[in-house]
Amino acid sequence: MQRWNGWGDASIDYPLPETARLYLQEALGSGPTLHDAKLGETLVQMQTSTWAKPVSGISTDAESRLRCSYGQSLPDWLQRRFGQCQYATDAVATPESETELRELIRIGRQRNARVIPFGGGTSVAGHFAPADDSRPSLTIDLRKLCRLLEFRADDRLALVEAGCSGPLLEAQLARHGYTLGHFPQSFEYSTVGGWIATRSSGQQSHLYGRIEQLFAGGAAITAEHDIECQPFPASSAGPDLKHLLLGSEGRLGVIHQAWLRVRPKPESEKFLALFFPDWQQAITGARLLAQSDLPFSMLRLSNSLETDINLRMAGHTRAIYYLRKFLRWRLGSNQPCLMLLGLTGEAKQVRNMLAQAMAILKPLSVQNTGETIGQAWRKNRFRNVYLRNTLWSLGYAIDTVETALPWSQVTPAMQAIEQVAREQFAAEQERVLAYSHLSHVYASGCSVYSTFVFRLSEDYQHNLARWRKLKTAVTDTIQAHGGTLSHQHGVGKDHLPWLGKELGEGGSQLLRHLIKAGDPDGLFANGNLI
Amino acid sequence: MQRWNGWGDASIDYPLPETARLYLQEALGSGPTLHDAKLGETLVQMQTSTWAKPVSGISTDAESRLRCSYGQSLPDWLQRRFGQCQYATDAVATPESETELRELIRIGRQRNARVIPFGGGTSVAGHFAPADDSRPSLTIDLRKLCRLLEFRADDRLALVEAGCSGPLLEAQLARHGYTLGHFPQSFEYSTVGGWIATRSSGQQSHLYGRIEQLFAGGAAITAEHDIECQPFPASSAGPDLKHLLLGSEGRLGVIHQAWLRVRPKPESEKFLALFFPDWQQAITGARLLAQSDLPFSMLRLSNSLETDINLRMAGHTRAIYYLRKFLRWRLGSNQPCLMLLGLTGEAKQVRNMLAQAMAILKPLSVQNTGETIGQAWRKNRFRNVYLRNTLWSLGYAIDTVETALPWSQVTPAMQAIEQVAREQFAAEQERVLAYSHLSHVYASGCSVYSTFVFRLSEDYQHNLARWRKLKTAVTDTIQAHGGTLSHQHGVGKDHLPWLGKELGEGGSQLLRHLIKAGDPDGLFANGNLI
Repeated sequence: MQRWNGWGDASIDYPLPETARLYLQEALGSGPTLHDAKLGETLVQMQTSTWAKPVSGISTDAESRLRCSYGQSLPDWLQRRFGQCQYATDAVATPESETELRELIRIGRQRNARVIPFGGGTSVAGHFAPADDSRPSLTIDLRKLCRLLEFRADDRLALVEAGCSGPLLEAQLARHGYTLGHFPQSFEYSTVGGWIATRSSGQQSHLYGRIEQLFAGGAAITAEHDIECQPFPASSAGPDLKHLLLGSEGRLGVIHQAWLRVRPKPESEKFLALFFPDWQQAITGARLLAQSDLPFSMLRLSNSLETDINLRMAGHTRAIYYLRKFLRWRLGSNQPCLMLLGLTGEAKQVRNMLAQAMAILKPLSVQNTGETIGQAWRKNRFRNVYLRNTLWSLGYAIDTVETALPWSQVTPAMQAIEQVAREQFAAEQERVLAYSHLSHVYASGCSVYSTFVFRLSEDYQHNLARWRKLKTAVTDTIQAHGGTLSHQHGVGKDHLPWLGKELGEGGSQLLRHLIKAGDPDGLFANGNLI
Repeated sequence: MQRWNGWGDASIDYPLPETARLYLQEALGSGPTLHDAKLGETLVQMQTSTWAKPVSGISTDAESRLRCSYGQSLPDWLQRRFGQCQYATDAVATPESETELRELIRIGRQRNARVIPFGGGTSVAGHFAPADDSRPSLTIDLRKLCRLLEFRADDRLALVEAGCSGPLLEAQLARHGYTLGHFPQSFEYSTVGGWIATRSSGQQSHLYGRIEQLFAGGAAITAEHDIECQPFPASSAGPDLKHLLLGSEGRLGVIHQAWLRVRPKPESEKFLALFFPDWQQAITGARLLAQSDLPFSMLRLSNSLETDINLRMAGHTRAIYYLRKFLRWRLGSNQPCLMLLGLTGEAKQVRNMLAQAMAILKPLSVQNTGETIGQAWRKNRFRNVYLRNTLWSLGYAIDTVETALPWSQVTPAMQAIEQVAREQFAAEQERVLAYSHLSHVYASGCSVYSTFVFRLSEDYQHNLARWRKLKTAVTDTIQAHGGTLSHQHGVGKDHLPWLGKELGEGGSQLLRHLIKAGDPDGLFANGNLI
């Protein structure tokens, strides 16, 4: 059973090694013991559904509504853990066929409801925050629309229903020996439709491509018509309308089918841990690899604080002690930076790629420590997100922001993002662990993903105000450095105040025109994008 | 000086070897000797400009108007060669700065004119066909906006004015040791803005990317506002508005600046000629290479008739005779298919790639004949388009169509395209040479590029009617096989009647909404897209 107030399956815990707990205590002070609101308490505080007359197949019970009204952003957590869930969608339905989906949209229109598509509920950008008004909302949970409808090996295309989650999709493709290779950290729950609607990027997108490359075509039900994009390998026939669905955040309609570009499952895969003596060498190495044509599958580069914290969180105190000693000897550095390099393909290719990567890095000081760290990362790649539950129980919050920028802006932006966070907490006489990694690299730049760990306050409003202040300071900093609002999480309500600046007046107006023209009555007015 | 009624520089001829001329005569019969209309005769037939009062910097003389009103499609040729150019734009201006460009757009709006951006004029899809009504048209020739404005080596980004032609762009980048690598056959004249507005693809896009990948951001002046897209390496912040400029065909405004993703000039480049005994083996080889992760720069696969004709057109009768003998011995085939494989990169990489390519092709029967044919192709890559002038002078027309489809549809589509062309000409007791190649390959499919060579008629209307019939039959065939209207040439007026079918009712409506909302008064209503 999925946790109603945190990440993931309620039966799964991600324990923190004792040394890591002590480290946090030393770095941040002991966290408070919070008394999380119980589900029952939270449900009775919810406003009554404004969904007027019952309809068979549409639930208005409080728990169903609650479960489809919040995501995984820090405010989403705060609201549930402090039992502050007054607002929720008014009704929830789970169609099992396209016919049922169409009928639900018809009913939504008839009742003048807002129709809100819902997938895995893993948004960390506040996509689901319900509107506070009298107009009813009907959330359509798409997770039962999850079948593989067609598979064409020679064309490397699979047609899938958009409610399909990562594991369900991969299991269906694996029967044919294929994979999509789209592995965002939310993989366990997030869905194909959600990936498309938020322009998601998987951890191994350097080989497999972002969802923009993987989404070959598909079908959406909009307010006035269906949109169907055929899975051409490429086309120059006018603007590519797929790109109106990509990033549409539910605002243009319900994406219900997708043609995906699939690949045979790889024969071999390695994740290697390379260490650099300092950030300057490390980011140069990342850029050189990104600007080569080497088709590695992943490059993830932690700055020195993140490297240090990851080693501390890993446990294995003795092994880490010797690793640090070894790196001091080999690199002359106490603050090394860890690069995880993913190589995926035929066994021979993987060996060749490693040799080529090391040749590219030859002008730099770098130490390859083999696969042990990478194996641990791989094992926990969809599990470390469970750490949020553990940290909360110790009185700590973890929040993240991410952006993408040209290479020349990466280091100044990263430093400034961490700095504004530290300054904000310092002003409250609090401390924060602020550290970053580059998660996706491109020839012209990369993403920067920053994490903030800090003590929770016992007061709900205080936590929320602090989050808002942090979000504001960090997002302003990102924009001042020429970064995008989001590389992989989307806009949601959390980034919406800044979207106008990113798009400019003309771009914003064009987006508004587009949405208003495609949905004149606001059938899909879920508060995202405009 | 650019030819006013054909392709390219008037001082350049592309002579046809005598054997090739004899072959055409045998295959198609002798072409008629046509008396091309003179420029002077054509100019006096033109309708008077409806541009009311003179404005400094805006020309209304007939030759300027004529030169910016036609492209390179067969109807464009027929109209000029037969002196049928009644319709033309009413005024032409050539801004030298952004300020002048804005002033021209302002004047266009004030006069209720249609404002038509113009680049290299190389469209083969009828993008410039003027409207036959009383509203004046103001064509803005952007070719003097051609400066490199900013170059950032580490970010691999160049900001360039959109009127820059291929050679001018490459010369400016070459000073930094860089290249864009975008080489469509129209390279000599086509411009950055034109590439973006028609979603163009260069011959080596397999390495460098289509213009969608190369266009990192940019600026356009639309009817109501400016649109500026920042050059993020990637973003998930809402729909990617760049994709509204890509393929916009002038209909949303004037693209005037572009951030382009550039690369260092390669150290080494080879174009190898591989031969397969038959089409089935050849297309299997193309698919296997396309579905590997090998970063070759080009793959161009001719079917057996195109291979035969290319060998005949090449001259070098003796060498070709021995090549055919050699291929008969090695492959046991009289109808081999030629694959040109482009390998680009560091010298060592290029050698490795060749070994890898041959390993991938190992299950097939294939003969590598080295670089001679590829060198000849490279030398003439932007010259063989001059052949259209030569063929016309011999009384033959050459027309081409292209599409892209999933692999499973490629062979049936290609055969059907050639077949409908042959049937149409047979019904007139005429013959046609109809042959094809795959010019761009992807994991999920490829483009099919078909060429038709046939005798011209002495009658203008007869030629035009025949072209329209051929276009209709072939385009219907493409759509029946699940192909797109265009892989690299755009929609223009020639493909517009079929666009509704490609986009479907919902997609068409969304595109209409988008254009009408962005340009409510039709300031850029050049007749493209809607």
